Amino acid sequence: MSNPASPTEFETVTATSPAVVPVRLGDRSYDVLIGPDLLRDAGRRIAAVAPGAACGIVTDTTVAAHHLAPLQASLDEAGLRHTVVTVAPGEGSKSYAGFAEVCDALLAARLERGDCVVALGGGVVGDLAGFAAASLKRGMTLVQLPTSLLAQVDSSVGGKTAINSPLGKNLVGAFHQPSLVLADTASLDTLAPREFRAGYAELVKYGLIDDLDFFQWLERYRGAVCGGGLERVEAIRRAVAAKAAVVARDEFETGDRALLNLGHTFGHALERLTGYDGTRLVHGEGVAIGMSLAFRYSVHEGLCSGQDAERVTAHLRAAGLPTSIGAIPGWTADADAMLDAMAQDKKVSRGSLTFILARGIGQSFIARGVVPERVRAFLRDELPPDGERA
Amino acid sequence: MSNPASPTEFETVTATSPAVVPVRLGDRSYDVLIGPDLLRDAGRRIAAVAPGAACGIVTDTTVAAHHLAPLQASLDEAGLRHTVVTVAPGEGSKSYAGFAEVCDALLAARLERGDCVVALGGGVVGDLAGFAAASLKRGMTLVQLPTSLLAQVDSSVGGKTAINSPLGKNLVGAFHQPSLVLADTASLDTLAPREFRAGYAELVKYGLIDDLDFFQWLERYRGAVCGGGLERVEAIRRAVAAKAAVVARDEFETGDRALLNLGHTFGHALERLTGYDGTRLVHGEGVAIGMSLAFRYSVHEGLCSGQDAERVTAHLRAAGLPTSIGAIPGWTADADAMLDAMAQDKKVSRGSLTFILARGIGQSFIARGVVPERVRAFLRDELPPDGERA
Repeated sequence: MSNPASPTEFETVTATSPAVVPVRLGDRSYDVLIGPDLLRDAGRRIAAVAPGAACGIVTDTTVAAHHLAPLQASLDEAGLRHTVVTVAPGEGSKSYAGFAEVCDALLAARLERGDCVVALGGGVVGDLAGFAAASLKRGMTLVQLPTSLLAQVDSSVGGKTAINSPLGKNLVGAFHQPSLVLADTASLDTLAPREFRAGYAELVKYGLIDDLDFFQWLERYRGAVCGGGLERVEAIRRAVAAKAAVVARDEFETGDRALLNLGHTFGHALERLTGYDGTRLVHGEGVAIGMSLAFRYSVHEGLCSGQDAERVTAHLRAAGLPTSIGAIPGWTADADAMLDAMAQDKKVSRGSLTFILARGIGQSFIARGVVPERVRAFLRDELPPDGERA
Repeated sequence: MSNPASPTEFETVTATSPAVVPVRLGDRSYDVLIGPDLLRDAGRRIAAVAPGAACGIVTDTTVAAHHLAPLQASLDEAGLRHTVVTVAPGEGSKSYAGFAEVCDALLAARLERGDCVVALGGGVVGDLAGFAAASLKRGMTLVQLPTSLLAQVDSSVGGKTAINSPLGKNLVGAFHQPSLVLADTASLDTLAPREFRAGYAELVKYGLIDDLDFFQWLERYRGAVCGGGLERVEAIRRAVAAKAAVVARDEFETGDRALLNLGHTFGHALERLTGYDGTRLVHGEGVAIGMSLAFRYSVHEGLCSGQDAERVTAHLRAAGLPTSIGAIPGWTADADAMLDAMAQDKKVSRGSLTFILARGIGQSFIARGVVPERVRAFLRDELPPDGERA
């Protein structure tokens, strides 16, 4: 993975011959397939991992309008019975009520333990359908069909599923690996530009964690990645391969899987304090600001050069992403509220904060025992003065 | 386990030296301790499996009145911080709403991933708190302190947790093993007689599955088991040892763990069709009727002698348990409704029913592909005629 791939290296990816990234987890191993038009062929591939299973498709109204019909046709062709549960788009569906609704609808369709929950959508649908699949009859087969960039490079791979509590994001869930992930890169063409940009933040994350070479590659090919084509497939393949390697080492996040949370401790607090209001802040934007904050806090602590932190924010800004709290419309919370929101994070241990910090681009590490008072002081400088709030 | 134990064999069980049954599941192994007054010593024992953990006690108002204060005193003594979530007694709390309530209360208490959920109560509390522990931050430590006979011999051991859906019982949950189970046999003295009898049905179940000797032992010592004392401890120990052996062989119920569902396919349908109304039918009573039905259906199919089926019902009846659908107050559902309720069972596979049937006492087996029409015909004979309903 060290040399920037030239376009010729990934020219062979086609609908019938997608890129394949195996996730190696013993008897829970599975493949992530990446390429154009995979949804049209989904029935045959699902039948291969769950022969004869009935499928409970979980999707949202926006995604359904674009992708449900071809998926259903493909399942019909493969001879798989299917039923559909449609939820409202947006983070609000990842709630206790949304969970109950999806579970009961799948039960009403008489899905059995050996049948298959098919998550067709972005991160919200994947997390919600995944937690339902983990819980229904104490565990059903799950297939992820991620249709957003964010879901393709992050949430659909690795088995984390969850819903939100009023007390914080992703606080109630399960580790439940899918049996197959089909990342149809053509489906990204239907994304709103803001959603595509949000997913791009998670792509950048893999470079920032431990792959300076990938970050440099993205600096060079960002235009092509955003424009579609083979560079996009290659960017997703590299991100998924990076995630698969971490997950294979640490499935249940007892160790360095926590690195994947770069930008997320700050980001989740930002999302919580904006009430998960997707008109103000979507998840990937929270991660973009969170990564910027993590790098600037690393500079503040004398760990990282200011040059590297500026290079990170410059790239994110060039991709159209926000990089400071002041960019969030209507922001009013203070540093204490931020600390309070972060205290509910899953990575808190015995009251002390754990952050992912960096010694430079591609040199992130898990920092335990971060002193809240130092973070508070840093955030006071970061927060926009009252008069300048967006 | 083949010879009936004489009282001298289990004379050594005391509060400081309880019976210990190990549940062997690799790195998820744990001990079940059985003996009087274990709750008063719970703090020290919890601290041993979860050093320094904060404890989120989940209990119901009835159990709290009897057992909460001594548990809290014991946690104080061990230096463990604790918080309490109290739910209403009864099956109604094992709902989506009850799950959300317990999760949010534990989150509000700032419990962290390494902290401990302590389930103090019967099967409802254990299943509900267990599913919350499985789901909160994708998995917290769980300690089961079962205070009902049913929970001590069945639901607290083996890691099955769940809530009910309006579509059926225990349909949404997780496999999540506890780190410790303390079965305080003195707590059984505070049980309502009806609750104790209901738990007795689950004790009998272990004899019926594969241990004729234990069934004979119960026929002989039933009075002593119900009266308390060492026979009761021994009966619980034998039941837990039987369950631990099955769970160690088949943690995720892909094989013969299903035997533990003897009486439960019928029983769950009965509970569902009485609206989980504990004034009409509690779980153990449903299992008692269900086991009677399973044996009579086995006779109906020519698998089992009528004599054995009569011996089963005679023993259950002597213990004060119901053995026929006609014993349920206000029963109105017909055979079709029963079949429909059973079709939602987790053991249904590709539309065909799986029952636990018997060739005799102690000779139960998993019967797949049971023909619904034959069950329907059997149930028509079992159902009370309109005029004779209780």
